[in-house]
Amino acid sequence: MSPPFTAAFVADPEIEAWFAPEAEIKAMLAFETALAAAEAEAGLIPAAAAVAIDAACAAFVPDIATLTEGLIRDGVLGPAFVAALRQKVVEPYSRYLHFGATSQDVADSALTLRLKPVLALLDARLAALIAVLHEMSVAQGSIKLMAHTRMQAALPFTAADKLTNWQQPLLRHRARLAALGPRLLAVQLGGPVGTRAEFAGKGDAIAADLARRLGLSDAPCWHTARDNIVEFGQTLGLIAGALGKLGADTALMAQSEIGAVRMEGAGGSSAMAHKANPVTAELLVSLAHYTSGLSGTLCQALVHENERSGTAWAVELLTLPPLIFATGAALMHALNVAKRICFIAQ
Amino acid sequence: MSPPFTAAFVADPEIEAWFAPEAEIKAMLAFETALAAAEAEAGLIPAAAAVAIDAACAAFVPDIATLTEGLIRDGVLGPAFVAALRQKVVEPYSRYLHFGATSQDVADSALTLRLKPVLALLDARLAALIAVLHEMSVAQGSIKLMAHTRMQAALPFTAADKLTNWQQPLLRHRARLAALGPRLLAVQLGGPVGTRAEFAGKGDAIAADLARRLGLSDAPCWHTARDNIVEFGQTLGLIAGALGKLGADTALMAQSEIGAVRMEGAGGSSAMAHKANPVTAELLVSLAHYTSGLSGTLCQALVHENERSGTAWAVELLTLPPLIFATGAALMHALNVAKRICFIAQ
Amino acid sequence: MSPPFTAAFVADPEIEAWFAPEAEIKAMLAFETALAAAEAEAGLIPAAAAVAIDAACAAFVPDIATLTEGLIRDGVLGPAFVAALRQKVVEPYSRYLHFGATSQDVADSALTLRLKPVLALLDARLAALIAVLHEMSVAQGSIKLMAHTRMQAALPFTAADKLTNWQQPLLRHRARLAALGPRLLAVQLGGPVGTRAEFAGKGDAIAADLARRLGLSDAPCWHTARDNIVEFGQTLGLIAGALGKLGADTALMAQSEIGAVRMEGAGGSSAMAHKANPVTAELLVSLAHYTSGLSGTLCQALVHENERSGTAWAVELLTLPPLIFATGAALMHALNVAKRICFIAQ
Amino acid sequence: MSPPFTAAFVADPEIEAWFAPEAEIKAMLAFETALAAAEAEAGLIPAAAAVAIDAACAAFVPDIATLTEGLIRDGVLGPAFVAALRQKVVEPYSRYLHFGATSQDVADSALTLRLKPVLALLDARLAALIAVLHEMSVAQGSIKLMAHTRMQAALPFTAADKLTNWQQPLLRHRARLAALGPRLLAVQLGGPVGTRAEFAGKGDAIAADLARRLGLSDAPCWHTARDNIVEFGQTLGLIAGALGKLGADTALMAQSEIGAVRMEGAGGSSAMAHKANPVTAELLVSLAHYTSGLSGTLCQALVHENERSGTAWAVELLTLPPLIFATGAALMHALNVAKRICFIAQ
Repeated sequence: MSPPFTAAFVADPEIEAWFAPEAEIKAMLAFETALAAAEAEAGLIPAAAAVAIDAACAAFVPDIATLTEGLIRDGVLGPAFVAALRQKVVEPYSRYLHFGATSQDVADSALTLRLKPVLALLDARLAALIAVLHEMSVAQGSIKLMAHTRMQAALPFTAADKLTNWQQPLLRHRARLAALGPRLLAVQLGGPVGTRAEFAGKGDAIAADLARRLGLSDAPCWHTARDNIVEFGQTLGLIAGALGKLGADTALMAQSEIGAVRMEGAGGSSAMAHKANPVTAELLVSLAHYTSGLSGTLCQALVHENERSGTAWAVELLTLPPLIFATGAALMHALNVAKRICFIAQ
Repeated sequence: MSPPFTAAFVADPEIEAWFAPEAEIKAMLAFETALAAAEAEAGLIPAAAAVAIDAACAAFVPDIATLTEGLIRDGVLGPAFVAALRQKVVEPYSRYLHFGATSQDVADSALTLRLKPVLALLDARLAALIAVLHEMSVAQGSIKLMAHTRMQAALPFTAADKLTNWQQPLLRHRARLAALGPRLLAVQLGGPVGTRAEFAGKGDAIAADLARRLGLSDAPCWHTARDNIVEFGQTLGLIAGALGKLGADTALMAQSEIGAVRMEGAGGSSAMAHKANPVTAELLVSLAHYTSGLSGTLCQALVHENERSGTAWAVELLTLPPLIFATGAALMHALNVAKRICFIAQ
Repeated sequence: MSPPFTAAFVADPEIEAWFAPEAEIKAMLAFETALAAAEAEAGLIPAAAAVAIDAACAAFVPDIATLTEGLIRDGVLGPAFVAALRQKVVEPYSRYLHFGATSQDVADSALTLRLKPVLALLDARLAALIAVLHEMSVAQGSIKLMAHTRMQAALPFTAADKLTNWQQPLLRHRARLAALGPRLLAVQLGGPVGTRAEFAGKGDAIAADLARRLGLSDAPCWHTARDNIVEFGQTLGLIAGALGKLGADTALMAQSEIGAVRMEGAGGSSAMAHKANPVTAELLVSLAHYTSGLSGTLCQALVHENERSGTAWAVELLTLPPLIFATGAALMHALNVAKRICFIAQ
Repeated sequence: MSPPFTAAFVADPEIEAWFAPEAEIKAMLAFETALAAAEAEAGLIPAAAAVAIDAACAAFVPDIATLTEGLIRDGVLGPAFVAALRQKVVEPYSRYLHFGATSQDVADSALTLRLKPVLALLDARLAALIAVLHEMSVAQGSIKLMAHTRMQAALPFTAADKLTNWQQPLLRHRARLAALGPRLLAVQLGGPVGTRAEFAGKGDAIAADLARRLGLSDAPCWHTARDNIVEFGQTLGLIAGALGKLGADTALMAQSEIGAVRMEGAGGSSAMAHKANPVTAELLVSLAHYTSGLSGTLCQALVHENERSGTAWAVELLTLPPLIFATGAALMHALNVAKRICFIAQ
């Protein structure tokens, strides 16, 4: 089914690619390969098993439809994925696949593996936007504008003042992502109920080695402690909020009666040819409201009852991807807006 | 880009089809055809123009990519759609296409045109679920269960009592949809700023005729008054909430230590072969939380400033479709759960 | 503890009075009196017991501190309230107090008893606001204004057009409250697990008589079906949203560079003596966002697991009162704004 | 007006005291005194003016009713507060009071001044809860329990495993508060439009000195960049979410049919004497949902348009205090729950 036209408002192909089924399976395969290698290294499974598992993973071609059926039936991809992959492992090694692990281990590790490049993309877009705003300050900063408080003209200031107000939270957001990265981008390894009891006393060593092999942080099992995930979603809400402020300011300055900015390539109207609508600036405000709402809903997922909650987990799975895509799209829209703004002296 | 695997949790192909680009364009064409016919009937445009427009609409093949570009540029499909369609109208009649109307007229009317079958689908699923619950009452109603209040065993009651509690809000939801239908499924016709000034004093008559031709209610222009739309989203939140209660009850009754229901075809675990997880029941709870959040975000769209707010409108466009799909999917999941429940005497 | 200064933004003494502890106890006493009378009428308890209970209720002086302790301990006022009241019933009749009922019966009935005047107050304020807007149309409707779409000047229209846009959703909100009233303002009587089993086959008759005595609708037990309550909260979100639109329009029109309205008695600044800030109009927008959020959170309370959920119920109890007060306050602020608006021809 | 009984669920007198009008005025007076001292030190105002202002602040008795009227009229306390205080400054120095500052400078600085002890209180409660959970691990950690995933019995583990899962996010929350403190607890000084233009080139030095005198961090003006405030609210959502998980686990373990915990002092029922309801544990879940919703609404306040938004600011002022109180109350309730839990071997 094609998505609605308006999905284009939040389209972010570069980031969405990391959430496509193929990318998720690829990350799951990386987990199973690295887990087998770490378990072999620790002497928990035969070295030949790790080789066989590596070969099976390298050759595995997922059947997306069957895996999707499994997801709906089991609530998680793991059982169908492991069953399909196990058939590809040369015997007598198939029993060593996913050894001691649970579906959530592979699901969460495959998530953080993909969040790593996503974080880098978001940070790069923040950096690009800050750079554009800085260039604007250099080029247009001395233009005199009227500051407005509570919807009223207040006192004169300059475009540089406005641009500084837009940049400062973005700088803090980059610092937030940098501080969050190490705790968010962590390996997940707990076994069925999160105790690592299945790893014969070697669970912590295997987790550390697994993390190293995957380029993730080492961490104790976090099956039920979703605070880092939710904090990431909240930070996305902060980012989109800052962009919403940039958009709101732009749309207000672009009002016909104020004219403090001109937007190159503004949107048209089917009924009024004279109009130049600050469409993308308005959309930034919409995305701020949308992501704020999603961030509050994601926070509802913290009540992750007992040792694994299908309920809370699915709330997370339903809200985190659109929150990421909308924020990623908002960053692209903001860059687009910033590049087209010409301040006009008041 | 393929959507994430977990999009399957909220997949509802039957309803999503009404939001696919092709369906939206088809509804927009129906609007333009009917508008021209009504305007010709009122003597506002030549009868031959209506014939030419009807022919152009019937033959129109949309270029989805170009229209999507237009949507992003203009914030609304109207300008690009009307421009493309106008080229197909035999001259000298192209100027009579979309005569006096604005993009929001066609967008909103094309929305309510499609919400009409969507409402019917949702109602049919509610009716089917009520019927299944009623059959369960007949077949299993006398089974003795233990009622629980505040997570504690309270006093005995029967499966019929439980089933009655599940059915009653669903009956009210059908009544809500029935009451909402006429005011929600209304034609939109306002012209550029919502005054019908462009229709030479015949605006009200044209709107009434247009409504009749489209099978929609007649209504004054509601460009900026989104209360019926938001109320629809809120009602979806009510429906999904009732299903979440059904799911929560089922998951609680299915607990190993309680065993008051057995779910046929429960989900498996990649690590624990003995488990039978009430996956779909849990998902109903997740969907209730998810739709509750979306309904609150949709409500933020009521602050529709001035005579058309790109900002508030986009919030609506971003939240209404996922809210509809998730509720539609929840109804299917609930039917699936209900059909698989076997109560076990306590 | 005094509330923060900013509680004044949502202060609504007239409505808050109905939620004060004394008013709640008074409604609970009315329930117990009427229940005993209905049970005596049905022959379930001695007529003399009803007389004794009536006397005890009439003379009861609540100890708010002790009842609050009970609320925190039991999660509901019922146990402590009934225990205290029981001591005041002349023996041998104390055992007939609250006969067959549960704490939620008295809590919910005491809520709907108080929502009845609250609904009337809200409706009266809606009517008053509609009347003021109508008077404004008569007095100022012909003033020429500029319509704005997507933050841009669009085409001329009149103050009457603007005022019509503000009034129409308010008219629908009155109709919504009128339609909701009968199903919302219902008696609650279910007994411990909602089956009316404790009423010896006379439960339905007693509920009907109780409803009549209290001036509420008769209804089957709705302990766990909170849809009418949530729908009420959602309707409050719709009302506050319409007022937020009125506020947003006013603040935008009041901008220094536009000057399409003058607000008598606008707010001052500690730093800029020349400013006239549209403070109350802005506050209407804030209240729309605030109530939208609360309405989404209230909707989370629908997942009312099993036969009584302390969890979902407390979510309702935490969100419904502030939602009511904020909407009530918004209506007063909107009336205040409307009375002070002078349109200025553009 | 007395608050509703159910306000007791979120009562936190120790923290609420910091938001009482008297405490806010005291913090505002501290700001004005320190500002005058810093401005005198910088040579911007006479040293004698600072002495006179210090004396006026020390002797000032606020008229809460008049200030509240001013708040409603002006949207902020500043104008009425400064006007009242100015009358108390010995002439010819009254003109040096609040010199160069704007209402938001004193409002925001007075907020962060009070958030400082609030943060310390929250952190102390987190530490106390962690200590209790640690003591429980020592005393009861070896008790065998059954782990549950997706509402089903999974595999055995121990109370220590459960307690570890509860403690780990709390440790991270303490680290979050510690990292947030310096950027949140910052001075606000911007002047009317946030440029410090009124301070004759000495604005940065005065702000730094003011921060030092108030025990706050130095920071550039953050009038419109509310990310640190919203991040604080989001962190409260994370904290309450972790406590909601503790509450949900407890209520599930306390189920009659499971009996893995006994709660000393559990709540009673007005109808069923045999019940011991896990009332406080359930309330923790409610507070998690409530605060999640508030955190999402607070995030809506980031769209702080232009150089001061009355709208966005009021959303913040309406949501932050209840979010703080509810989280503070949740910490006390969680401590109460933790102290009363006795695990029972399964």
